[in-house]
Amino acid sequence: MTDLDFEKIAYGGDWNPEQWDRDVWREDVRLFREAGIDLLSINIFAWTMLQPDEDTYDFTHLDEIFTLLHAHGMRVCLGTATAAHPAWMATRYPDILRVDAQGRKRKFGNRHNSCPSSPTYRRFAPRLAGALAERYAAHPALALWHVSNEFSGACYCERCEGRFREWLRARYGTLEALNHAWNARFWNQTVTDWDEIVAPNVLSVQAHDRRTVLQGLSLDYLRFNSDNILDTYVLEERAIRAHHPDAVITTNLMGAYRSLDYRAWAPHLDVIAWDSYPGGRDTPPRTAMLHDLMRGLKDGQPFLLMEQTPSQTNWQPFNALKRPGVMRLQSYHAVAHGAEAVMFFQMRRSPGAGEKFHGAVIEHHGRADTRVFREVAALGEELRRLGNVTLGKRIRSRTAVWFDWESWWASENSLGPSQALDYVEQVAQMYDALYANGVAVDLVGPGSDLSGYEVLAAPVLYLLHPETVDALSAFVKRGGHLVTTFLSGVADVSDRVFPGGPPGPLRALLGLWVEEIDALAPEVTNRIVLSEPLGELKGAYDCNLLFDIIRVEGAEVLGTYEGDFYAGTPALTRHAYGEGYAWHVASSAEPEFLRKLFGHLCREQRVEPTYPNLPVGVEAVVRGDDDDHVLFLLNHGSQAVTVPLVEAVRDLLGGGIVKDEVRLPPYGVLVGRPTR
Amino acid sequence: MTDLDFEKIAYGGDWNPEQWDRDVWREDVRLFREAGIDLLSINIFAWTMLQPDEDTYDFTHLDEIFTLLHAHGMRVCLGTATAAHPAWMATRYPDILRVDAQGRKRKFGNRHNSCPSSPTYRRFAPRLAGALAERYAAHPALALWHVSNEFSGACYCERCEGRFREWLRARYGTLEALNHAWNARFWNQTVTDWDEIVAPNVLSVQAHDRRTVLQGLSLDYLRFNSDNILDTYVLEERAIRAHHPDAVITTNLMGAYRSLDYRAWAPHLDVIAWDSYPGGRDTPPRTAMLHDLMRGLKDGQPFLLMEQTPSQTNWQPFNALKRPGVMRLQSYHAVAHGAEAVMFFQMRRSPGAGEKFHGAVIEHHGRADTRVFREVAALGEELRRLGNVTLGKRIRSRTAVWFDWESWWASENSLGPSQALDYVEQVAQMYDALYANGVAVDLVGPGSDLSGYEVLAAPVLYLLHPETVDALSAFVKRGGHLVTTFLSGVADVSDRVFPGGPPGPLRALLGLWVEEIDALAPEVTNRIVLSEPLGELKGAYDCNLLFDIIRVEGAEVLGTYEGDFYAGTPALTRHAYGEGYAWHVASSAEPEFLRKLFGHLCREQRVEPTYPNLPVGVEAVVRGDDDDHVLFLLNHGSQAVTVPLVEAVRDLLGGGIVKDEVRLPPYGVLVGRPTR
Amino acid sequence: MTDLDFEKIAYGGDWNPEQWDRDVWREDVRLFREAGIDLLSINIFAWTMLQPDEDTYDFTHLDEIFTLLHAHGMRVCLGTATAAHPAWMATRYPDILRVDAQGRKRKFGNRHNSCPSSPTYRRFAPRLAGALAERYAAHPALALWHVSNEFSGACYCERCEGRFREWLRARYGTLEALNHAWNARFWNQTVTDWDEIVAPNVLSVQAHDRRTVLQGLSLDYLRFNSDNILDTYVLEERAIRAHHPDAVITTNLMGAYRSLDYRAWAPHLDVIAWDSYPGGRDTPPRTAMLHDLMRGLKDGQPFLLMEQTPSQTNWQPFNALKRPGVMRLQSYHAVAHGAEAVMFFQMRRSPGAGEKFHGAVIEHHGRADTRVFREVAALGEELRRLGNVTLGKRIRSRTAVWFDWESWWASENSLGPSQALDYVEQVAQMYDALYANGVAVDLVGPGSDLSGYEVLAAPVLYLLHPETVDALSAFVKRGGHLVTTFLSGVADVSDRVFPGGPPGPLRALLGLWVEEIDALAPEVTNRIVLSEPLGELKGAYDCNLLFDIIRVEGAEVLGTYEGDFYAGTPALTRHAYGEGYAWHVASSAEPEFLRKLFGHLCREQRVEPTYPNLPVGVEAVVRGDDDDHVLFLLNHGSQAVTVPLVEAVRDLLGGGIVKDEVRLPPYGVLVGRPTR
Repeated sequence: MTDLDFEKIAYGGDWNPEQWDRDVWREDVRLFREAGIDLLSINIFAWTMLQPDEDTYDFTHLDEIFTLLHAHGMRVCLGTATAAHPAWMATRYPDILRVDAQGRKRKFGNRHNSCPSSPTYRRFAPRLAGALAERYAAHPALALWHVSNEFSGACYCERCEGRFREWLRARYGTLEALNHAWNARFWNQTVTDWDEIVAPNVLSVQAHDRRTVLQGLSLDYLRFNSDNILDTYVLEERAIRAHHPDAVITTNLMGAYRSLDYRAWAPHLDVIAWDSYPGGRDTPPRTAMLHDLMRGLKDGQPFLLMEQTPSQTNWQPFNALKRPGVMRLQSYHAVAHGAEAVMFFQMRRSPGAGEKFHGAVIEHHGRADTRVFREVAALGEELRRLGNVTLGKRIRSRTAVWFDWESWWASENSLGPSQALDYVEQVAQMYDALYANGVAVDLVGPGSDLSGYEVLAAPVLYLLHPETVDALSAFVKRGGHLVTTFLSGVADVSDRVFPGGPPGPLRALLGLWVEEIDALAPEVTNRIVLSEPLGELKGAYDCNLLFDIIRVEGAEVLGTYEGDFYAGTPALTRHAYGEGYAWHVASSAEPEFLRKLFGHLCREQRVEPTYPNLPVGVEAVVRGDDDDHVLFLLNHGSQAVTVPLVEAVRDLLGGGIVKDEVRLPPYGVLVGRPTR
Repeated sequence: MTDLDFEKIAYGGDWNPEQWDRDVWREDVRLFREAGIDLLSINIFAWTMLQPDEDTYDFTHLDEIFTLLHAHGMRVCLGTATAAHPAWMATRYPDILRVDAQGRKRKFGNRHNSCPSSPTYRRFAPRLAGALAERYAAHPALALWHVSNEFSGACYCERCEGRFREWLRARYGTLEALNHAWNARFWNQTVTDWDEIVAPNVLSVQAHDRRTVLQGLSLDYLRFNSDNILDTYVLEERAIRAHHPDAVITTNLMGAYRSLDYRAWAPHLDVIAWDSYPGGRDTPPRTAMLHDLMRGLKDGQPFLLMEQTPSQTNWQPFNALKRPGVMRLQSYHAVAHGAEAVMFFQMRRSPGAGEKFHGAVIEHHGRADTRVFREVAALGEELRRLGNVTLGKRIRSRTAVWFDWESWWASENSLGPSQALDYVEQVAQMYDALYANGVAVDLVGPGSDLSGYEVLAAPVLYLLHPETVDALSAFVKRGGHLVTTFLSGVADVSDRVFPGGPPGPLRALLGLWVEEIDALAPEVTNRIVLSEPLGELKGAYDCNLLFDIIRVEGAEVLGTYEGDFYAGTPALTRHAYGEGYAWHVASSAEPEFLRKLFGHLCREQRVEPTYPNLPVGVEAVVRGDDDDHVLFLLNHGSQAVTVPLVEAVRDLLGGGIVKDEVRLPPYGVLVGRPTR
Repeated sequence: MTDLDFEKIAYGGDWNPEQWDRDVWREDVRLFREAGIDLLSINIFAWTMLQPDEDTYDFTHLDEIFTLLHAHGMRVCLGTATAAHPAWMATRYPDILRVDAQGRKRKFGNRHNSCPSSPTYRRFAPRLAGALAERYAAHPALALWHVSNEFSGACYCERCEGRFREWLRARYGTLEALNHAWNARFWNQTVTDWDEIVAPNVLSVQAHDRRTVLQGLSLDYLRFNSDNILDTYVLEERAIRAHHPDAVITTNLMGAYRSLDYRAWAPHLDVIAWDSYPGGRDTPPRTAMLHDLMRGLKDGQPFLLMEQTPSQTNWQPFNALKRPGVMRLQSYHAVAHGAEAVMFFQMRRSPGAGEKFHGAVIEHHGRADTRVFREVAALGEELRRLGNVTLGKRIRSRTAVWFDWESWWASENSLGPSQALDYVEQVAQMYDALYANGVAVDLVGPGSDLSGYEVLAAPVLYLLHPETVDALSAFVKRGGHLVTTFLSGVADVSDRVFPGGPPGPLRALLGLWVEEIDALAPEVTNRIVLSEPLGELKGAYDCNLLFDIIRVEGAEVLGTYEGDFYAGTPALTRHAYGEGYAWHVASSAEPEFLRKLFGHLCREQRVEPTYPNLPVGVEAVVRGDDDDHVLFLLNHGSQAVTVPLVEAVRDLLGGGIVKDEVRLPPYGVLVGRPTR
């Protein structure tokens, strides 16, 4: 667990009071109390205010804010204010400005604009973090630290290029090794001096953001950039730690965010925190998957929901309001999946600039007699009542889905075989299939402990470390069911195709090899025909996108293609390996296929649904163990439903005992505890 | 009125004879006479010819052209030739080249490429204008001046950045005021020195052309750029005036052109002139609206139609020919709405380069026995016959639509709430609704005199000056009906949301406040249900896009939303205020709703249609007053129609008296005068 | 004929062994022998390996490869390795890097990145080619030379700009001539010094890739860039020739590739070689047309199919496998149309970087017991059996289609009249119509000998050289039927519209002139109504896109428009001229119209189909003359068909005599020889 000392689910959000006068601060605090708010993220964008010039620090405002919040019993999640550097700094030290993927030097403005290799940034940011720590480490209101904000993006300046060369030298040692790893002799991309290495962008090898002609180079730059930005986090973290040894330090992540390999970041964060902004087309399992992905970064340790909107976003094309009850439902959805804080962006709606149309707890009208404020306040009251009952409780999953940033990067980086391949979508289809079976799922990846799982879905295992091959083999050997797909076992860590072709080192595990890979326009379908029923999985199912043409070497053929010149060849195989089975789905199968396949596997492996007989649209999650747990029943639908209960529970929100069945209104939630 | 001394509607267009030898000039003049042409815009792009190097002016050609035209009784609209600078100037003085929104220095080529802050441009352009004035001020053929051509675009160079800082200093006085206006503390956009201010583009705060994260900055740059370009107009205008005190000076505007706030430009022009190029999807009311917008810039003063194509454009994806009769119809459409000149681009079709596929009076074949030339010549003959009867006559409108460049800029500049919002489209929907009721409409805006109107549509009053609030309030107070919509009263002149939220200072006038604003994809509709009929307005009507969720404070609720969680809440309100009413339409309503709403308001306010019982597709316009006016009946349809007449009129084109009814052929026109 | 000394159809492809160790080389050669491979393109991308620094050449690897191939009886198509310069060269001599159309200096990476004006490139590339020639000219394995690889693209750097100015000076002599040619006075684009001329790109006159406001300039830059890149080919060619006077030297072209005027290149190539990669939407006639286009570059001389994929590409959005039999069919398709080599890219699939997902003869799995390898080996065996029977035989066509790079460039370069005009598509529609009539077709252009043709389709003759007018007139005069279309005879070689307008110098030949050109959105159709039947051509047919409105001067009107204001005016005309007829199709007609029109013309001109009574989807081609020829019957369909034979033939692939009829399986081929 974290070192957080929360006594209840923390409740609050981003408060940027520097935009208003002090009388507004006081009104805000009054309304916070009315809404049960107890944790405020502050100082996120106050760098210039704190440091109006190179030699001056001015903590007047921040002192006051600390005092005010403390006086009202609220606590502080303290931003280091480094997410947007001061204008004066950009003017005096232009090295702090990034160069974009088109080679254009950026100008001052916007946020996330500091070059991670900039000596200026690397000097001033930790200096400020240290000064903050020196001043506030001992403040009783301080709960945790929030370094910068939503780290993101990439820089392609000459300094980054220089650091990239050093990073490569450390990784490869020799140019021979580097040229070989990148297969640089093809198209004569060979480098004969470290200084010849060029940052990959549209002026060199990138066709555009996600297609490159030198995948080894581009993949290494993705790794380097993630490491390089992480390094700036670490600089601040150390500066804080120097004055505040037992600080809880984190930054807010963004779910399935491509540019940063959060799995490499996670060990450096004391607790995972993330910002959940489901878009208009995101389904409940998509949100659930992202919570589970974030929870999985630290092996199931609870996390903080650092941001969500109370009402609407501003950056989507059409920013719909959250319908009544949805904010509450999504808050408990996060808590069910492991959140120990429910935080909003933003506490008071900004009167101008970047996010003035982004929803807030306190709207521009500043009133409390409104739908949004009432919903926020009602949730505050519920969370107060809920107390500490969920804190520290874990979700116990016996199924898992594999998510790996490096396979994401590499599988979408090449020219061919299909531009329609979307790694996250493939992962999500697996997740959806398990979710539809009502079982708990963990998101795992390289380095994860797989010993607790019976079923593991690992689609598009495109890039493989030797350790991953070992871990997956061991998983199956000791009795697990592993499901892989097309485009697995293709390339090594430098995106070189394995000798012998796919599935490379998975060949013994899967009992097959891939002769050819067909790629068709997404609207063209083939069908997978089952040889004989596997539980409910029977008959034929649509598939599309990519089609491994397979030759088996020991695997059983359980399904074959219905059409095309490879009709009758294997499309679904199972290979007995040790005590378990390695399955292979050769094409992108329709949801029903995956749902039934995983239904079959769960039954085979005796993985039970979290809760039986749930109506459509209702999700059940249990936090805790057999002896001590909390049940969440979440109605994601816009219609009321009745859920039959297998045992009576105490309703932790509404009070009283519920037995036999519970009626959940639209977007309704039951948080219950067995009465035993 | 203008100081123009026209004795009839001027007829002619852009003539660029420097492309041909003198024998072509003579042939052109012969054909001009055949076509009744009497006014030629010349010298538009002749800078290098006039000034082949820094120290030489050569007016030989221009003298000849003046002489030739004058000898044939034609007059000159004299271009100052500064719309495209010489290549030698760009080579010697690169400061004249603009920097684009991506920070790229442009190279020589194309037109509209002079940086408005360039010392070179600001020196040479007025010097040339002055030299022309010195030489031609007294020439008997000179009718008016045409400065540059279609001013447009923007520059982002360092010189413009420098002038922008000066402009800001003059506007705000202090950085404190500026930072507050822009709410710059959010995302730490605070500037601590004037020199830290950066021109807003995609390298700084702009997401792309119309979305920015620092709206105050971007809005001020739009203002500055419009002012800065206007300043170059003024430099030329003064240089002319020095030699030609009573000159009539103008430039050609482009209708609803976003980059330049024509309302701020209008006082500097002696007469409004504009270029009308209806595209394939533009409807007759859209063209009418733009004529009215241009006429409204000088409070109804007649204007010049400076350019239209006789046959086809070249810059549209598919450049359809104007069908027979359409050019004539559109010419009278312009005259009906206030034009006192009917001018073409171009008189002879260019043999090469930019506009060689743009239609012309004299086509590449150079013949007179063709459809286009015959239509041009026939119109020339008609205009001769028409004489001065329409000159100086005004359109009398008792309804108006509000159009404001600053609300246009600001309402589309933010992230959120909806990318689908199109300010001009919202204005046009109001115009269409009034047009469909057959009433005359003026386009008005900040500074307009509203005393003559009974009905005023002012959609998306997003950005409000205090003077506008006062003007609208006074309008209602003295008995007007004002119709506003969603997204009104949002922000002050710096795009800061008003304290208390929308509708800000309109709250007392509208009798309501806005609790939330929902934004849905355009294909999602709700419905506005009328509580009881308002004339023909009854039942329910589709609405979409944006949905104010309203709390009334005195306003009557006349319609409510049919669906969604705000079903039953106000969607149409009316607030009695003084002698009048302020209406509010909370969502983007379908055309039928607006048509019937304005039909009701016109009946309530006793605003009669211009002409009764018109068939569909026929527009009536009256120029003049009760005692002396001309009636235009314009058949925009491709089918012949019969229009019943309320009184006999003299047919000013065909001759004779028409009574009882008139048969209008496809695209046919009646220009008549009461026989009384 | 070429000086190639092939004894059979050469069979092989691109082999880049520098990517692997020597044991892989040996395995490759073993597999090549198994597959009947006898010609390998090598050394395509080995520059850095050959020249690791400025002063060193190292031919160790290449010597070994030569020795290995020679030892196994295989021959070499020797690349000069200059398609991708070394990284060290880019670092030391940045002048070798191109500047793109946005003015951005490119960085090292990718291929085709050498500036053609770079002194470095122009020094080092021929030096390497010369060194290779010195070393290998006498090697018995050397069959031919392959300079660089797929020349392409353009550069916009200052050096290219400088050379462009010299090129212009040579073309025009005086600035007066240049300004006149470009009609530069319009929009004041006049230049008064050669140094004022700017390379045309998006920073100057280009709207984007294919639209410009100064067409003369942009057209000349297209010519210059094609010439400038050709010049780098010539530099290498001469360097080779110095050591190897009787060398056969070529480079691989890319079909209808816009940036390079292959017709100007062809005289410099000893033999035409090209890379055929039909995309998913390309039809058999489209591929046939490109073969014929390439064959036509040297007046029908056989060519080399230098690259095709054995299985799949990697650069298309979705890279489908070639279905079984399709690679064989496409190989014979090429041979039928004139190929004397059948070559693949690539021999062994690259393990990493740019084309690791591109198909290969030897796949990543390296096996021979697979579908693709077996198909390749089977074809190798067939080609061995076929021997020299097809070599040197020509296709005899009495119909031709005109294809001209300059009309392609110019017709798509202007603003207007229609952005939907696609020159290659218009040519292809003509080709398709002739193909559908089963007749042999040549692709011809400026400079081609037209004496052998009876029917010539020349659509969109937009830009005309005087020689072309003469050639077409002579063709008709001596009895040919010429078919032109809308947008013909528009502009001279500088894209200046001809005095008098379209069809300019074709007016006497066509017997008409064009009064107006209507342009409508592609989905809007009119119809061409035939006055009386012309063979099967009768009734009415859809047309769209562009509509010449015509006035005849001697031409017969055979069809008229059905609708719109030009209903009843000529849409299809025929003009007797000398012994022949000049036809004009005034709009873009539907395929059935064109098919029947050309059917009629072929019957009139007694042009017989290559083979009678072919089922749909079967193409017949004859190589050779009456006395000695080979018949190809190609089933492009996925269903088996039976073809009735007019005479017995010896089946050169399967052996034996086939008479009466032959059954072609899906994608099946008969290569036969009359038994007489």
